[in-house]
Amino acid sequence: MAENDLLIRAARCEATERTPVWMMRQAGRFLPEYRAVRAKHSFLEMCYTPELVVEVTLQPVDLIGVDAAIIFSDILVVFPGMGLDLDFQSGKGPVIGNPVSSAHDVDALAIPDPEVSMGYVMESHRLLRRELAGRVPLIGFAGAPFTLASYAIEGGSTRDFQRCKAFMFNEPAAWDALMTKFAKTVTAYLCAQIDAGAQVLQLFDSWVGAVAPRDYAASVLPYTKMVLDGVKAYDSSVPLIHFANGATSMLDLVQQAGGDVIGLDWRLDMAHAVERIAPRFAIQGNIDPVTLFANEEVIDAKVGEILAAVGTRPGHIFNLGHGISKETDPARAKHFIASVKEQSAQVRGARA
Amino acid sequence: MAENDLLIRAARCEATERTPVWMMRQAGRFLPEYRAVRAKHSFLEMCYTPELVVEVTLQPVDLIGVDAAIIFSDILVVFPGMGLDLDFQSGKGPVIGNPVSSAHDVDALAIPDPEVSMGYVMESHRLLRRELAGRVPLIGFAGAPFTLASYAIEGGSTRDFQRCKAFMFNEPAAWDALMTKFAKTVTAYLCAQIDAGAQVLQLFDSWVGAVAPRDYAASVLPYTKMVLDGVKAYDSSVPLIHFANGATSMLDLVQQAGGDVIGLDWRLDMAHAVERIAPRFAIQGNIDPVTLFANEEVIDAKVGEILAAVGTRPGHIFNLGHGISKETDPARAKHFIASVKEQSAQVRGARA
Repeated sequence: MAENDLLIRAARCEATERTPVWMMRQAGRFLPEYRAVRAKHSFLEMCYTPELVVEVTLQPVDLIGVDAAIIFSDILVVFPGMGLDLDFQSGKGPVIGNPVSSAHDVDALAIPDPEVSMGYVMESHRLLRRELAGRVPLIGFAGAPFTLASYAIEGGSTRDFQRCKAFMFNEPAAWDALMTKFAKTVTAYLCAQIDAGAQVLQLFDSWVGAVAPRDYAASVLPYTKMVLDGVKAYDSSVPLIHFANGATSMLDLVQQAGGDVIGLDWRLDMAHAVERIAPRFAIQGNIDPVTLFANEEVIDAKVGEILAAVGTRPGHIFNLGHGISKETDPARAKHFIASVKEQSAQVRGARA
Repeated sequence: MAENDLLIRAARCEATERTPVWMMRQAGRFLPEYRAVRAKHSFLEMCYTPELVVEVTLQPVDLIGVDAAIIFSDILVVFPGMGLDLDFQSGKGPVIGNPVSSAHDVDALAIPDPEVSMGYVMESHRLLRRELAGRVPLIGFAGAPFTLASYAIEGGSTRDFQRCKAFMFNEPAAWDALMTKFAKTVTAYLCAQIDAGAQVLQLFDSWVGAVAPRDYAASVLPYTKMVLDGVKAYDSSVPLIHFANGATSMLDLVQQAGGDVIGLDWRLDMAHAVERIAPRFAIQGNIDPVTLFANEEVIDAKVGEILAAVGTRPGHIFNLGHGISKETDPARAKHFIASVKEQSAQVRGARA
């Protein structure tokens, strides 16, 4: 079987014969095959067990036809090695038993050796590369410093980020120390994933959309940039996708953070994105994930709109603007993937 | 006491000697005086009782020093008159007992006479104008068609808007009928508030940030425009504020909806807003409400940044980028209001 390296080439803004496509959270609950595994294991047990990681990571590749595998894991798996107690409670999401609330708490945090503390992730990468055998590229990932800090300070999910932002506003020295520790942890973790076989990396700043642009520029961007620049310096050949969710109103700043690919949520029209994003970046996105609840004609039309807005600009990776909803019908997801492949071949094929 | 008409003049892009300031959700749970009233009455009981509406509407004017009163109410009070059962359940928010799920359900909805079905709101306006006696202008408000449709279809609050968007995608004729009914209901309701004494009106599209720009243009904007144009045609002298929350990535479209004032959440830097918003509009916003959890020096600095970005552009109403959080210290809110007044007088005073 020929190697499918469309995603890697698109991420480098090289010409591709069609647009590669994958879906955030594709190894997840929308698949009955995933739920069958999950029924027998806790969420963290799955993250910690390479054989289970391999199984559910491969499911969307085999069943849905995506152009990339993204390792099944969670951005918070770095927490235990740092000294933050992590649990996932049904219906509540992640719970941190000892949240950070002072400079003293920040001082106590460790910067873990990824091979020691997250070795199961690296082992999963090694197994996955063998199993995939070049069928599609393997994506590794990590959480960005702000998103990790928000969980560490809030102790779990939040709507308003009051504790997190109050810490950022009122304790600038402790905030700097905390964000620096997260940046160092994440940089080492992503580099270790490269060593273990990850061919593309995505940095998820899932909650950064809650931050005002000037606060982002002053208190978040420098640490995100530290990660992206650090990984780039370690191995410049591995494409870096930066997904700053909810941040389409401050794309000027997001681009300053570096990386190779700007991941977009669905709140910005792709035509505007193409205007605002510098040509050196590839673009990933950005169909509303709820579009997969529409009928096939609507899905086709909306895929076509995004492809038309991108045109033949080099460097487009098709994706949802957010993780796939767990209630999505797998048949619709499969139709979406096929639609991107088919329509983009028509747009791009002539140039391949 | 002299009349304070700063808000009205700013909304008309007339010169003002300082920037008027108020806070979304200012008549609310952050005030102990509000909580004391709320402890004795249910939320809807408060909405339905003009004497209670008057009491809590005046609290932030008297206690915090804001430059406008906004009538205490809820965007969903139009529901019972339309035939939608409305309840507020503790910890769950609004619950609609008979959500809309078909074209048949849409057909069954009425367009209520506001004086009959929401007469208590008009009565509250009349009482408030008397009580305020020109101290500050009185703002009336309503929910925009999309936000109302989302509650009607989802049956309450939602994170993903799956049912609502699926209805929009898959049932275009029923969606049009539903949005038209909401547009007509809201237009009549806002006009009735003008007749009852409201001096400024705000249309809240609280959840429209969940909609992709092309879906907004095709399936939301026409109905919002119907409301804003309809109220304008009824009485062009009353300024209309349009707050499309979360929509700063599609400000081009939001401006097409009409109105006089563009309300901004905090996700767009004010310097960019000034560039992107046409001079015919006044601008309302846009400090992150969580800034009020910062110390006073930080609050002052962030107020100053926004005022500097606006400069002496005519037509700025200072506000939070979202409703004030219920955990906010009233002393910080008071400091914020004073800071806007003092700093803006320095910026604008010379021109007055």
